[in-house]
Amino acid sequence: MISTPRIRMKAKPARNLSRDDFSVETISFQAPASGDVLVAARFFSLDPYLTGFMRGWQGPDPRWGEGIVVGRFVAEVIESRDPRFATGDWVQGEGGWQETEVIRGDKLQKIEAIPGVPFSVYLSVLGSSGLTAWAGVNGVLKLQAGETFTVSSAAGMVGGIAGQIAKKIGARVVGIAGGAEKCGHVVNSLGFDACVDHHSHDLQADLAAAAGSPIAAHFENVGAKTLDPVLANIADRGRIALCGLIAHYQDMNPIALKEFRRLLISGITLRGFRLPDFAADLPQASAELKAMVISGDISLIETISHGIASAPDAYLNMLEGKGVGKHLLKLG
Amino acid sequence: MISTPRIRMKAKPARNLSRDDFSVETISFQAPASGDVLVAARFFSLDPYLTGFMRGWQGPDPRWGEGIVVGRFVAEVIESRDPRFATGDWVQGEGGWQETEVIRGDKLQKIEAIPGVPFSVYLSVLGSSGLTAWAGVNGVLKLQAGETFTVSSAAGMVGGIAGQIAKKIGARVVGIAGGAEKCGHVVNSLGFDACVDHHSHDLQADLAAAAGSPIAAHFENVGAKTLDPVLANIADRGRIALCGLIAHYQDMNPIALKEFRRLLISGITLRGFRLPDFAADLPQASAELKAMVISGDISLIETISHGIASAPDAYLNMLEGKGVGKHLLKLG
Repeated sequence: MISTPRIRMKAKPARNLSRDDFSVETISFQAPASGDVLVAARFFSLDPYLTGFMRGWQGPDPRWGEGIVVGRFVAEVIESRDPRFATGDWVQGEGGWQETEVIRGDKLQKIEAIPGVPFSVYLSVLGSSGLTAWAGVNGVLKLQAGETFTVSSAAGMVGGIAGQIAKKIGARVVGIAGGAEKCGHVVNSLGFDACVDHHSHDLQADLAAAAGSPIAAHFENVGAKTLDPVLANIADRGRIALCGLIAHYQDMNPIALKEFRRLLISGITLRGFRLPDFAADLPQASAELKAMVISGDISLIETISHGIASAPDAYLNMLEGKGVGKHLLKLG
Repeated sequence: MISTPRIRMKAKPARNLSRDDFSVETISFQAPASGDVLVAARFFSLDPYLTGFMRGWQGPDPRWGEGIVVGRFVAEVIESRDPRFATGDWVQGEGGWQETEVIRGDKLQKIEAIPGVPFSVYLSVLGSSGLTAWAGVNGVLKLQAGETFTVSSAAGMVGGIAGQIAKKIGARVVGIAGGAEKCGHVVNSLGFDACVDHHSHDLQADLAAAAGSPIAAHFENVGAKTLDPVLANIADRGRIALCGLIAHYQDMNPIALKEFRRLLISGITLRGFRLPDFAADLPQASAELKAMVISGDISLIETISHGIASAPDAYLNMLEGKGVGKHLLKLG
């Protein structure tokens, strides 16, 4: 038997998710059988979409029903009884938030080292964050050179990559982020043309000034607080890619928009999308993103917490907007 | 000089539009000069979109700035000094809410009689209501045979035509309307498959039962009250054509949606649209609608008020949902 510490939820969250909803337990499991691989997780991806599963104890993996948190990881192979993998290989997949785990080889994909780039890139730019950003900018918005593009949560991973893809396309790129420090990061580290602080007392006017012209295409990650001022500044027949509503995952009240009427008045198309909607485009997206990582057109910015016991704090910090870029839990 | 009674607004509406905001004045104007046509309006179209112009005293015609209401009409030519028109011709165009008016010939289009069909058809099925319904169903939603289609304000002109177009396409068509009488009209006179009453205490459940399967395509004319239960019953990757927000024209509060998150979770596309967005498709739309009127695939249902002095009441009745089908003011 092998032992490992694992995160488990204590009870279904009453209202808002809190650090007290999680505990660390020690579990034991059998050594790998034929077709199995024993992996040691090196990075877990901390993503807002997990909140819904955490609240309902329900997700694509049946273990959610027992309050076990199952996320994306990159891992090193410790022992393999699947001939496709060998000790020391790096893989990506999905597993419980724990240090080591036995997983069927069918559920793992081998990943290759990129010189000078950490393996965590497979959880950010080359993982769902990067692919989602690509799908929103290219698949939904079909962004063109010269257009004015805005993105909320611009210091977050998806928003930051979306803006960098938009810059590469040749758009005017304006971010919305929380606070002067994050805005500085968005402009100075990520190369956006401008960034406005969503704490402003007049975000609508700040956005108008920063955008310079009506917004042709917008990538929404947050919710009403950012969508309203964008709608107030949107171009006729503008497009909106709705990728996330992070401000509304903790709070199940109705979402109220002062500027909802603009969708009608200005003939706007708003599309909610999920990564699987663009499954057919993913090989092209992966190839383009990898080229942008290698060429340096996309910066890799990470906020890293260390050790399995820090997972609850790291997750809540991510939800609360503390830190920039990709939020990761690092193990080993 | 020629005299005529005309509707004029007394002051900008304080909050909600009321009958007291309108007055009838008598004006005098010059007889037609070269290129002019003297027309006697026979029908004015009463349309929700005018409310915004009424509130702001601002619209595409500069006379809105003086509080003059300018709407669509069909009229008879009384005297013409434009060689393209003769006394007794019927025309359509736009003018002040008054009995007679001198208009430049360039601004009028001659209309032809259709046997057995009143000229008012040019303000409804063959006017902006019919063309808007066509654009929503075909241009925005690209509705297919066998899909489940819903439309709010189904007893209204645009909604009623949209449902009849959808039936002709071969969709399952469910209306949402206010009250048993209107729902009876929608099913019995317009031929919808089903209709649910928006006064129901559980519209979401009623809609689920009437639809039978998730809603693939929805045509929205009303607002949050109908959009929320539709979103709760929508199919994955469903489409929504946002054509009107009649429940929110009188009230400028934020629009709150309990089910806004569904746009994201279910990968929904919502498009606000205006008739000019489909200008290129209008010849095809007109031809198809005319064929449907002649074949009887579209029923002509009208709510008619008589005389210029009844215009304020007739307009407010239309906004308040009293009456079915096309709301018209009939003169002469």
